[in-house]
Amino acid sequence: MTGSGHDPVTRGTVLAESALAGDRRALARLLTAVEGRTVVAEVALRELHRRAGRAHVIGITGAPGAGKSTLVNAVVRQLRRDGRTVAVVAVDPSSPITGGALLGDRVRMQEHAVDDGVFIRSMAARGHAGGLAATSGTAVTVLDAVGYDVVLVETVGTGQSEIEVVATADTTVVLEAPEMGDEVQAIKAGLLEVADIVAVSKGDRPGAERTANLLRTMLASSEPTTARGDIGGSRPRPKRPEVLLTTGATGAGVPELVAAIDRHRASLDEEALAAARVRRASAVVWEIVAERVRRRLLAGELAGETDALLRDVAAHDVDPYAAAEALLAAYRGHTPREEERG
Amino acid sequence: MTGSGHDPVTRGTVLAESALAGDRRALARLLTAVEGRTVVAEVALRELHRRAGRAHVIGITGAPGAGKSTLVNAVVRQLRRDGRTVAVVAVDPSSPITGGALLGDRVRMQEHAVDDGVFIRSMAARGHAGGLAATSGTAVTVLDAVGYDVVLVETVGTGQSEIEVVATADTTVVLEAPEMGDEVQAIKAGLLEVADIVAVSKGDRPGAERTANLLRTMLASSEPTTARGDIGGSRPRPKRPEVLLTTGATGAGVPELVAAIDRHRASLDEEALAAARVRRASAVVWEIVAERVRRRLLAGELAGETDALLRDVAAHDVDPYAAAEALLAAYRGHTPREEERG
Repeated sequence: MTGSGHDPVTRGTVLAESALAGDRRALARLLTAVEGRTVVAEVALRELHRRAGRAHVIGITGAPGAGKSTLVNAVVRQLRRDGRTVAVVAVDPSSPITGGALLGDRVRMQEHAVDDGVFIRSMAARGHAGGLAATSGTAVTVLDAVGYDVVLVETVGTGQSEIEVVATADTTVVLEAPEMGDEVQAIKAGLLEVADIVAVSKGDRPGAERTANLLRTMLASSEPTTARGDIGGSRPRPKRPEVLLTTGATGAGVPELVAAIDRHRASLDEEALAAARVRRASAVVWEIVAERVRRRLLAGELAGETDALLRDVAAHDVDPYAAAEALLAAYRGHTPREEERG
Repeated sequence: MTGSGHDPVTRGTVLAESALAGDRRALARLLTAVEGRTVVAEVALRELHRRAGRAHVIGITGAPGAGKSTLVNAVVRQLRRDGRTVAVVAVDPSSPITGGALLGDRVRMQEHAVDDGVFIRSMAARGHAGGLAATSGTAVTVLDAVGYDVVLVETVGTGQSEIEVVATADTTVVLEAPEMGDEVQAIKAGLLEVADIVAVSKGDRPGAERTANLLRTMLASSEPTTARGDIGGSRPRPKRPEVLLTTGATGAGVPELVAAIDRHRASLDEEALAAARVRRASAVVWEIVAERVRRRLLAGELAGETDALLRDVAAHDVDPYAAAEALLAAYRGHTPREEERG
């Protein structure tokens, strides 16, 4: 009984209760509801939100081909060895249409299939217009609430939205593959700014030590603090990121990486930790605010006016600022009887 | 005299007038203001918006290494040969801090430096939280308004925000490099869904024809319409995308690509063209709406309450839906004396 049938409120409540009781199928369904931003998800989240706040949220990102999946699997293995439970949210750039996300899940789940202490979930990167960080932030809250000690969020570090996702973690690890030349992908992609720890993958390859040294030199010449103003609040970086060599395939360097991640978390004072969480909460709250304003303006008695205004802007008869002002005036003037739900 | 000094309203008006008069330095400054979302930009846009709507907006995207920059340069050359003026907006994943965007501009401008009919502008992908499509859409409006016949928007096809950017073009070209195996990057990245035309780059390489045939087979088995619901409205695709071979370096296939782009534009009826423009306008308008709500809630007498609510959500004392409702009630209850500007 995982809440199929019934009305959305009952289903949301039942899903939340079942997920809290350890029902993995209910948890998977709930995360699907989160991706779809349904009323079921909202009902469940209202229940689960206050139970979250205990997990260590770790972001892992890097350019395509840096070896993220291999490293994430190795980190999961190490955390399990330490006795910690782990949930993984892998933001997958594959299209929802190709089914890449689901396939990836299945392949990666195999290793941990018989381990109840691991839960892996892929989320398509597409289909969250304006709110990938909000959707993944909500998924993190769910996994935190149901009791995972660590929530790992993995994204490819090449899109603005994708970088924002990991930048809202408590600890952000940027992965870099050793290069032949002097080019460092993480720098090209602007990833070093969000790094708390830098891991050089494929650490057994020639050139890995050289890449690590190059990164250390670059980090030494940069400011010890990083401004994340564009992602919703600046973040004091307590110290320069450590640079470590890891080999995901053999597990070499992975215990040291996990130790560095734990040291980083321990080094965060209350204020720094709160700042990370306010950033994550802000992404979620502002997206809900924007979505509710949009939803009200696009539904019911206001829909016609909104549609006409957007067409006028598209036809270059009204400028977008004037349209926004008219929409907000309509929103303010319209007193909702019941709060926007459903 | 491009409007330095003076108050923002005067500066915005002067910048708009100078840009319309063909002052390239004023145009560059105006685009900087658009990226910074300043009052100057807003003033100028209110003036320029109604003058836009004539340009053909072409989006070009593809995985990293597909050869986008080379192809864009070749397309610009071809369009110039046809006597059309061209503006390029290149959304660059480089960090604003590394200066990669500006450097790229300079390198790419050299070829067209003495040609007043070409304007190239790189925009950093970072720093537009929640609104990369809005910022680039506004830049497109500016370049359209000042009279460029074609506005080319180039992004890397690996991020959600970046794909949204080109999906709001009138015509979207997806570029694919020939591969050795059966893997097609554009499909992995979910790019085929937004393609009106597919170009296989490096067309002189062995395997290019094979990749083109693979793409044709895949497109033949897919639905002839593409749903872009997640990007703000579904879009009827009039027919299956053409697949063409191009070699950016030699220019082979480029006249055929430009002809296909023109055919696509000609094939769009009024309604289909309007749909693309409503999508672009919507991205801009909804972002202004969201930003104004945020700005009002984060400033003045409401700032304290907003900050406290976000902290309560971060501390898991208030759920994000309850916080969003409280924020919207505060927004509605607060009657602004003057509209939110500055």
